[in-house]
Amino acid sequence: MYRKEIKVVDCTIRDGGLMNNWRFTDEFVKSVYNSCVEAGVDYMEIGYKSNEKSYSRADNGPWKFCDEKDLRKIVGDNKTNTKISVMIDIGRIDLQDIKPKKDSVIDMIRVACYVHQMDKAIQHAEYCLDKGYEVTINLMSVSKVIEPELDEALKDIAKSRVPIFYLVDSFGSLYCEQIEALMKKYKEALPNKTIGIHTHNNMQLAFSNTITGIIQGCNMLDATFMGIGRGAGNCPMECLIAFLKNPKYRLLPVLDTIQQHILPLQKSIDWGYHIPYLITGSLNEHPKAAMEWMDSERKNDFVAFLKSMHDKEILE
Amino acid sequence: MYRKEIKVVDCTIRDGGLMNNWRFTDEFVKSVYNSCVEAGVDYMEIGYKSNEKSYSRADNGPWKFCDEKDLRKIVGDNKTNTKISVMIDIGRIDLQDIKPKKDSVIDMIRVACYVHQMDKAIQHAEYCLDKGYEVTINLMSVSKVIEPELDEALKDIAKSRVPIFYLVDSFGSLYCEQIEALMKKYKEALPNKTIGIHTHNNMQLAFSNTITGIIQGCNMLDATFMGIGRGAGNCPMECLIAFLKNPKYRLLPVLDTIQQHILPLQKSIDWGYHIPYLITGSLNEHPKAAMEWMDSERKNDFVAFLKSMHDKEILE
Repeated sequence: MYRKEIKVVDCTIRDGGLMNNWRFTDEFVKSVYNSCVEAGVDYMEIGYKSNEKSYSRADNGPWKFCDEKDLRKIVGDNKTNTKISVMIDIGRIDLQDIKPKKDSVIDMIRVACYVHQMDKAIQHAEYCLDKGYEVTINLMSVSKVIEPELDEALKDIAKSRVPIFYLVDSFGSLYCEQIEALMKKYKEALPNKTIGIHTHNNMQLAFSNTITGIIQGCNMLDATFMGIGRGAGNCPMECLIAFLKNPKYRLLPVLDTIQQHILPLQKSIDWGYHIPYLITGSLNEHPKAAMEWMDSERKNDFVAFLKSMHDKEILE
Repeated sequence: MYRKEIKVVDCTIRDGGLMNNWRFTDEFVKSVYNSCVEAGVDYMEIGYKSNEKSYSRADNGPWKFCDEKDLRKIVGDNKTNTKISVMIDIGRIDLQDIKPKKDSVIDMIRVACYVHQMDKAIQHAEYCLDKGYEVTINLMSVSKVIEPELDEALKDIAKSRVPIFYLVDSFGSLYCEQIEALMKKYKEALPNKTIGIHTHNNMQLAFSNTITGIIQGCNMLDATFMGIGRGAGNCPMECLIAFLKNPKYRLLPVLDTIQQHILPLQKSIDWGYHIPYLITGSLNEHPKAAMEWMDSERKNDFVAFLKSMHDKEILE
């Protein structure tokens, strides 16, 4: 199972922050960072880099902005083997805020985009490349992208200098045969690029879809501690590391942070698989209706939620 | 995705009963039965048929014994499309307790066995066939069976009159490539028999392994409401039915019983994925050490549990 090209990317703070507006204590973020370093995790994505015109400091913690001074408060000069990553969203970032790599502790910038934003994403990504960073493009919500548009996006990526492209199952609606088909398409269109995978657990398939990604050649694998992330969450880091059985990785430091910091967070933040997410996932719908339902007093009225969805006739 | 040969087998009471010694109220069992009927589930496995020399009535509810009168209290003459199944364990059943089919509301008897019990399992299964029942053999713990023994067992099954053979991942330790390899072996050895699959969720792979089984040709699919079952539990019925999108099946009746009866049970019975099960599953060990840990005050000390396992050097 060992493949030296495989890199594990922790997204605990970045994706988990979607559940608490990135209001983690420094102690929490440091514990995740220390665990990543000790566990041999290759990258830690510590948050979004966003501009303050798009989001306010009053509503969002520091990991929505990832200022250099906040980063260094956690990682110092990061003299470790774990690289630091941040994500940027098209339209929520001022490119002039991205310093030359030599002035930043950030190693990698990941550009998240929808298919209609691909030209801008490539422009942003190449800008970051020119500043000296490692760069990826993460095409979100691929389960809603029609084939001709996906093919065109892949052609654009192929022509670009962007070295890493991500298969992202934003709605947690894909299963193994679909992951396999997409991976075959991505590899054929991008034979010289690295493919990554980022999954969601709406149908309890985040981990298994990541395994399918590995089998199909994905070499950048996203995961979060205990699967923390938006709604149903992500591929759990502990599952992935236990599975890889790769001498590079160690499970114990991950479990240590989980039991000290992540598990207690479950009392205040309710992420992970629940039946409303299964319903939106199986209908290939954005989980926002399920998230609203989960926030309501009717969260356990699954029958009413199913009835409330447009496509109820398919599933009833 | 529609394949008319596919049959769904509910094991909620039989496998869920391992968590409460089959002490369900009649109302609970009736609700599961009614849901199965309304949802189009093909079989409901309502418990074990065991003798009272092996197990006491004081320690176990009626679904450990499945007396005809108890069965009829729930299902009457069962004039529905959902067939009734019971499981028997080698050495825990007196064959003379199995009446001719015409005198029983049971339709199917599943014989659970370990590989060294295969001869006896075939003898039991053919006895039940001759009494008029549908019959399966479920070879447990296949992840611990060495290849020559598995090959011999498959040869014996091939020669027998037993029509259905089950791939059972008792330790929840298999992932898609292993399910695929076993299915190819089973199909090659048993070209004229039906193959079933029964999975456990120790590594969050029960549902995805069932999907892999479907892709590889399994036509008998075990699942339980909300995945209730021993330890980490089983493939969740709601995931399977939402996935199949088969006009034969309906999700709504399953959700109705879940929210009325299964979800409230979570307050008293703690089944489902937890990190100790991940650890035993990834080490291909019986989950009993994890179940004991989960019953102790240290249930959330994952680090200590990992250290307590013999193979800790692999995972630490």
